[in-house]
Amino acid sequence: MFEKEIQFLVELDKLKNVERKTLLFDASRNENSAEHSWNLAMAVMLFAEESNEKICLNKAIKMALIHDIVEVYAGDTFVYDSSVGKEQFEKESSALDKLLAHLNPSAFTEEVYSLWHEFEKEESPEAKYVKALDRLLPMLQNWKTEGHSWKKHQIKSSQVIERNSKIQRGSTKLWELAQSIIEEAKTKNYLKD
Amino acid sequence: MFEKEIQFLVELDKLKNVERKTLLFDASRNENSAEHSWNLAMAVMLFAEESNEKICLNKAIKMALIHDIVEVYAGDTFVYDSSVGKEQFEKESSALDKLLAHLNPSAFTEEVYSLWHEFEKEESPEAKYVKALDRLLPMLQNWKTEGHSWKKHQIKSSQVIERNSKIQRGSTKLWELAQSIIEEAKTKNYLKD
Repeated sequence: MFEKEIQFLVELDKLKNVERKTLLFDASRNENSAEHSWNLAMAVMLFAEESNEKICLNKAIKMALIHDIVEVYAGDTFVYDSSVGKEQFEKESSALDKLLAHLNPSAFTEEVYSLWHEFEKEESPEAKYVKALDRLLPMLQNWKTEGHSWKKHQIKSSQVIERNSKIQRGSTKLWELAQSIIEEAKTKNYLKD
Repeated sequence: MFEKEIQFLVELDKLKNVERKTLLFDASRNENSAEHSWNLAMAVMLFAEESNEKICLNKAIKMALIHDIVEVYAGDTFVYDSSVGKEQFEKESSALDKLLAHLNPSAFTEEVYSLWHEFEKEESPEAKYVKALDRLLPMLQNWKTEGHSWKKHQIKSSQVIERNSKIQRGSTKLWELAQSIIEEAKTKNYLKD
C-alpha cells in the first residue's frame, strides 16, 4: 500500500541531511534544509502582516515548505556563490521533476510543481514575501552567531546588501530590519566594510 | 526593530536540538523535532485525500507546523513511555504559554494557541488527521530502519497496536497501512510478538 508515497517520503527525507552554511542560533551546528524549511514556514506565519502586498498566507506557507525540496538531488547553494548561473535553475528544475516522478500525477504533484516555479520566478506577492524571509533568516542567524558564515567566507557588507536587497520587494519593513542588522554587523566587524 | 519576534525565533530554534527516538530513513542519526514538523506538514499535504472526514487542509498544515513547539521547553516524550500522564499536558501547556509570552498578543499568538489546544484534544477532523500522520511517520521510520527504536526499547506489537490504533480515527486507509507494517515487522522480528 502507498508504495509510491512512501518512496517519495524516503527521498524527501534526504533534505534533513542537506547542510546549509548558516549555524543554528545557539551556534551548536550547521542548520539543515529541512528544519530551515519549517523555520521559514513559521516565520511566514509570524510576519504575515509585514508583506508589502496582500498575500494568501496559506499559499505562502506551502511555498515555504516546498521551496528547497529540489536540494535532495541538487544540494544547497550558498547565497554568496557568484559562480552560480542559469545552469543552477536547470539543475534544480530537473531535480524537482525527478523527485515528483516518484508519485503518480495528482493535485499534490501539480501544486508542488506550480508553487516551486512560482517561487523561483519571484513575481507573485507570495513569492516575493517568502523570498524576503528566506533571505532574512540567514542574516539573523549570522548576526546572532557573531557573523559566523560571513566571517568564514570573508563576505563584505556590499555583498550582503547586493544579494539581500530584494527583501524590500517583499517587505520594506523587513528590509529596514535587515539594514539595521548590516549596520550593526559592520560596527562589530562581523562583516568586512 | 522586531526585538520580540526575533527573540521568539531564537526560542523556537531550540526545537532543532530536541532529539526524537526515531532515526532518519537512512539511519544516519536521530531525527529532531523541527525537521519532523516539516516532514509532518509535507505528509499532511501528500495524504490529504486519505482523511476520513473532510478537512481544511490549510488548518491541518499549520497544526502540523506548531504541534511540537512546546518541546522547546518541555522536551520530547516517547510515545511508548507509560509513565506519562496528566502532568504531561500541564507541562506542555505551560511551555506553550511561556513561549508565546515572548510576543505581544496578536492574531498569530491566538491562532497558535488555539491550534495547539485543538490538536491536543484530538476531536476535530484536522486534529484526528494530523495526529494519525504524527503516529504513522515514526512507524514508517522504524519499519525502514529495521525496527531501530522498537528493538532498542523492546517494544511489543501489542504496544504498537494499542498506542497507534487512533490512526484509524483520522484515516482508515492509513491505519490499514499501519497494520500491514506491524504484520511485516513481526515476521522480520523488528517487533516482539
